[in-house]
Amino acid sequence: MMELFQFRKCILIKLVAISLLVSLIHVSTVEAKIRRYKWEAKYEYKSPDCYKKLVATINGKSPGPTIMAQQGDTVVVELKNSLMTENLAVHWHGIRQIGTPWSDGTEGVSQCPIMPGETFTYKFVVDRPGTYLYHAHYGMLRDAGLYGSIRVSLPDGKSEPFDYDYDRSIILNDWYHKSTHELATGLSSIPFSWVGEPQSLLIQGKGKFDCSQSLGASVCNASNPECSPYALTVIPGKTYRLRIGSLTSLSALSFQIEDHNMTVVEADGHYVEPFVVKNLFIYSGETYSVLIKADKDPSRNYWITTNVVSRSPNTTNGLAILNYYPNHPRRSPSTVPPTGPYWDNVSLRLTQSLSIKSRQGFIVTPPQTSDRMIVFLNTQNSINGYVRWSVNNVSFTHPHTPYLIAVKHNLTHEFDQTPPPDGYDFVNYDIYNIRNNPNATSSNGIYRLKFNTTVDVILQNAHSMNSTKSETHPWHLHGHDFWVLGYGEGKFDIYNDPKKYNLVNPIMKNTVPVHNYSWTALRFKADNPGVWAFHCHIESHFSMGMGVVFEEGIEKVGDLPSSIMGCGATKGGLPRP
Amino acid sequence: MMELFQFRKCILIKLVAISLLVSLIHVSTVEAKIRRYKWEAKYEYKSPDCYKKLVATINGKSPGPTIMAQQGDTVVVELKNSLMTENLAVHWHGIRQIGTPWSDGTEGVSQCPIMPGETFTYKFVVDRPGTYLYHAHYGMLRDAGLYGSIRVSLPDGKSEPFDYDYDRSIILNDWYHKSTHELATGLSSIPFSWVGEPQSLLIQGKGKFDCSQSLGASVCNASNPECSPYALTVIPGKTYRLRIGSLTSLSALSFQIEDHNMTVVEADGHYVEPFVVKNLFIYSGETYSVLIKADKDPSRNYWITTNVVSRSPNTTNGLAILNYYPNHPRRSPSTVPPTGPYWDNVSLRLTQSLSIKSRQGFIVTPPQTSDRMIVFLNTQNSINGYVRWSVNNVSFTHPHTPYLIAVKHNLTHEFDQTPPPDGYDFVNYDIYNIRNNPNATSSNGIYRLKFNTTVDVILQNAHSMNSTKSETHPWHLHGHDFWVLGYGEGKFDIYNDPKKYNLVNPIMKNTVPVHNYSWTALRFKADNPGVWAFHCHIESHFSMGMGVVFEEGIEKVGDLPSSIMGCGATKGGLPRP
Repeated sequence: MMELFQFRKCILIKLVAISLLVSLIHVSTVEAKIRRYKWEAKYEYKSPDCYKKLVATINGKSPGPTIMAQQGDTVVVELKNSLMTENLAVHWHGIRQIGTPWSDGTEGVSQCPIMPGETFTYKFVVDRPGTYLYHAHYGMLRDAGLYGSIRVSLPDGKSEPFDYDYDRSIILNDWYHKSTHELATGLSSIPFSWVGEPQSLLIQGKGKFDCSQSLGASVCNASNPECSPYALTVIPGKTYRLRIGSLTSLSALSFQIEDHNMTVVEADGHYVEPFVVKNLFIYSGETYSVLIKADKDPSRNYWITTNVVSRSPNTTNGLAILNYYPNHPRRSPSTVPPTGPYWDNVSLRLTQSLSIKSRQGFIVTPPQTSDRMIVFLNTQNSINGYVRWSVNNVSFTHPHTPYLIAVKHNLTHEFDQTPPPDGYDFVNYDIYNIRNNPNATSSNGIYRLKFNTTVDVILQNAHSMNSTKSETHPWHLHGHDFWVLGYGEGKFDIYNDPKKYNLVNPIMKNTVPVHNYSWTALRFKADNPGVWAFHCHIESHFSMGMGVVFEEGIEKVGDLPSSIMGCGATKGGLPRP
Repeated sequence: MMELFQFRKCILIKLVAISLLVSLIHVSTVEAKIRRYKWEAKYEYKSPDCYKKLVATINGKSPGPTIMAQQGDTVVVELKNSLMTENLAVHWHGIRQIGTPWSDGTEGVSQCPIMPGETFTYKFVVDRPGTYLYHAHYGMLRDAGLYGSIRVSLPDGKSEPFDYDYDRSIILNDWYHKSTHELATGLSSIPFSWVGEPQSLLIQGKGKFDCSQSLGASVCNASNPECSPYALTVIPGKTYRLRIGSLTSLSALSFQIEDHNMTVVEADGHYVEPFVVKNLFIYSGETYSVLIKADKDPSRNYWITTNVVSRSPNTTNGLAILNYYPNHPRRSPSTVPPTGPYWDNVSLRLTQSLSIKSRQGFIVTPPQTSDRMIVFLNTQNSINGYVRWSVNNVSFTHPHTPYLIAVKHNLTHEFDQTPPPDGYDFVNYDIYNIRNNPNATSSNGIYRLKFNTTVDVILQNAHSMNSTKSETHPWHLHGHDFWVLGYGEGKFDIYNDPKKYNLVNPIMKNTVPVHNYSWTALRFKADNPGVWAFHCHIESHFSMGMGVVFEEGIEKVGDLPSSIMGCGATKGGLPRP
């Protein structure tokens, strides 16, 4: 009893301390508009789901530190790579990098990788409030645990168009016990070797693997405090803004809180016309803010759960605890955790996608026509015996010299100067059947966009190569937000579907799913000088070629910093073209 | 019976083919003096000891291809790094790189690491006949399997001072089931975490782990042909030159062939005054040629074995088969494999060390005096909470800019300009007791040697930090061979021990052990312009700081190729000093 009292006192002090800290941050912000971070990335042994393995951490943590800033601030991250023998680059997911395309952190596109022992300084302005992410963007290193949250608040004196008392960030992830080296080697081998479904789902870096299957307490220890479930402590009666991001390597997820509805208010940094859900579908690379009110029976805790959708799941559901203060945060509810919707129900997911509209009063009306339409057929292919993903039968390969440097300095030998096609054989391609696509090729060619033009992209999903399914692909665009004009099942009808576009209040996003056997239509302005990746955010899919690169307004890009060079044609500095 | 006949026929054809191939190589050599190799380094799943794990391979193999050349040839290796996210450098162990110090392949010393996707060309002359090695020299990547043999034969028309019919290369290695990332992370963690003794010993890339302990056939499969024992097929009556190299990550080894004596004739590329042994002690980084005669009962096969010495072994002995043609090479002898000498018998090992003298007629007499004497005390230390190895209480750390570039271009900020000390507190240091060495520090300072002077190095062993032992350390010098002037037990007596030096017929080597609680005395001429590492060849010991760097005649080094740049201060090309 005494212990419980002590514990409650401790939690109360913690809450007061957090509130104080939050106020302090707000006070300091008025003066200091530069947010400096010193980070060190390295491997450490961790047990995020009770299973001990090497985890890529930032300052000893995975997820890494949350970046907290206000709109208009400049964020400076001095990132030291201490990963021993591996290189690194970190992408600021959702930050458009206007005027700083060299800080996008995309290896092969915006910079050479950061070598072990080196420190690279990222410097960029967070120009819009909202919920963003950061993560490694080199090889499959993100899957090793190198990721975190970015929270950009409004300037002092301005307020959001919705009320809440507290703000919390939660990242969802899936987790493999094999190393990223093992994963990546299998994918690029003949015969192809697929690691299979993830071992667990992590909520804010914590999961629970069944240790009884395993090799002993030194490898898997269910009582390790590192894998005690994440507890989100709430004060009864208060409203919480949960900023939920997904950085799964593979899984599409449903997220739900027992007995608590969620009101969706933000998606990828844009205000959403509020709508209420029992569960939130979220795809890798997406962020949402939902409001929840702690208005249920305060004498108990509630389950927070996440489960795999869109693939036949073989991963235990993720569990966390919504902890009503002053209950003990480790006290598991006696109820059965909610299991979320059935994995194979595509129409439920399509319905949520269609529900997300721009909030009244915050609508950015899209251009009513576009200058160019590009249709991207997503397929799985066999190329020279390797299993690859392709877009219009072209599988993306990384160049040795980052595009930003190669394009800016006209190093035409550094990548294929033939752009990949704007479409595919619309008439004859059957998206519902296995096709081998024997003509698929690999290329590092890119799409050159005319500056300030409006571009439509149609993502067309199809059957995958060796099984009776089509997979969901969340596509993420660097350097831009796009308007989501529409979604539809089946094959995109180039004549009739555009007539159904939402040109009134489409949401703007940076990541969007293309559902099984479906299409998604996007529009964006090519108005950010630089070179930008657009790719499936499933780590293995991008590494297997499911991506493209856009260039626009390269002549307006300022002098490139020498810190991004040192690889490919820039190994000894800039060559003469 | 028919099958056996077929098999014998097949072996005979193979032997004839090999002989033909050997003659063809000899014929082609007369004209072609450049030996070109195109290599790709990548990870593959392999089961060298029946346990499946990622192995770093060259052209799909571990050990990689054997380099075969003749004295005076130029070897050109175009090495493509396809290790995904990891960098690479490959060292040509025993090749002095006269005139090409930038081809030494030592990351941080002679070059920036080769990034994934890049191809680096090594080009060097093999100026002496003999048995050499190559291996990764970046982080602990060598332990992942990236290594092989170099065999340099005499020019046509010249012959060795001993007779043999056939020539075979065998590399010995120890093998961990954990990844090098896991090994290295444990070593650089607080608390220190040591992976323990290796799981198996490999003979020419093959070992045998006990799969009954393991997780099932997908992980460990004793019937996998990849881990069938290495078979050395011999024709009865013939004499074989076995070129034996050790690239163990940790273990000192004894090597023996059941019922067959070995005559030692070469050590590290130098002819040895022949002596006969029943077992050969060999330390990581050493090579020996031994002659064996296939003069035993030809109706059976014989065991070849290797076992750990100098550390209390917890690794199963390595097994291979000496296969007397036409017996089946997989036919295990019914005898008990020889176990080798007791691991803790230091005097036997010291005796072998003392037996190795330069062969009459091939003696290179050392200078009778030296210009400088440096004594290196080898200790284990705690520095800022990390377990480190040190030399004279200074633990070596790698710089970000390779020394060769930094010294040549006078980039004085790139490493500590204070050289480490030439000695230690000779009088008060007790090598037989645990000493914490609280004053130990880390530094990347180097030793600058006056060009063409004669340098003596005394390696002094001591007690390690946390146990009742002193470990054997095989020290390897890049860019030179040294004369081995003497070995002795206990603390080196600076006044009396030099009087006992062998200045008449000392062997020249590039790698030499310093035995438990003992000293080893070396002499070399600082006559090879460049910057050269000298370090313990135990992979973990060097990565924990047990090494030094020598510079000599930097002003005589020609223009450095830009291909070695791209890291540290040379990220965007060469900076102004």
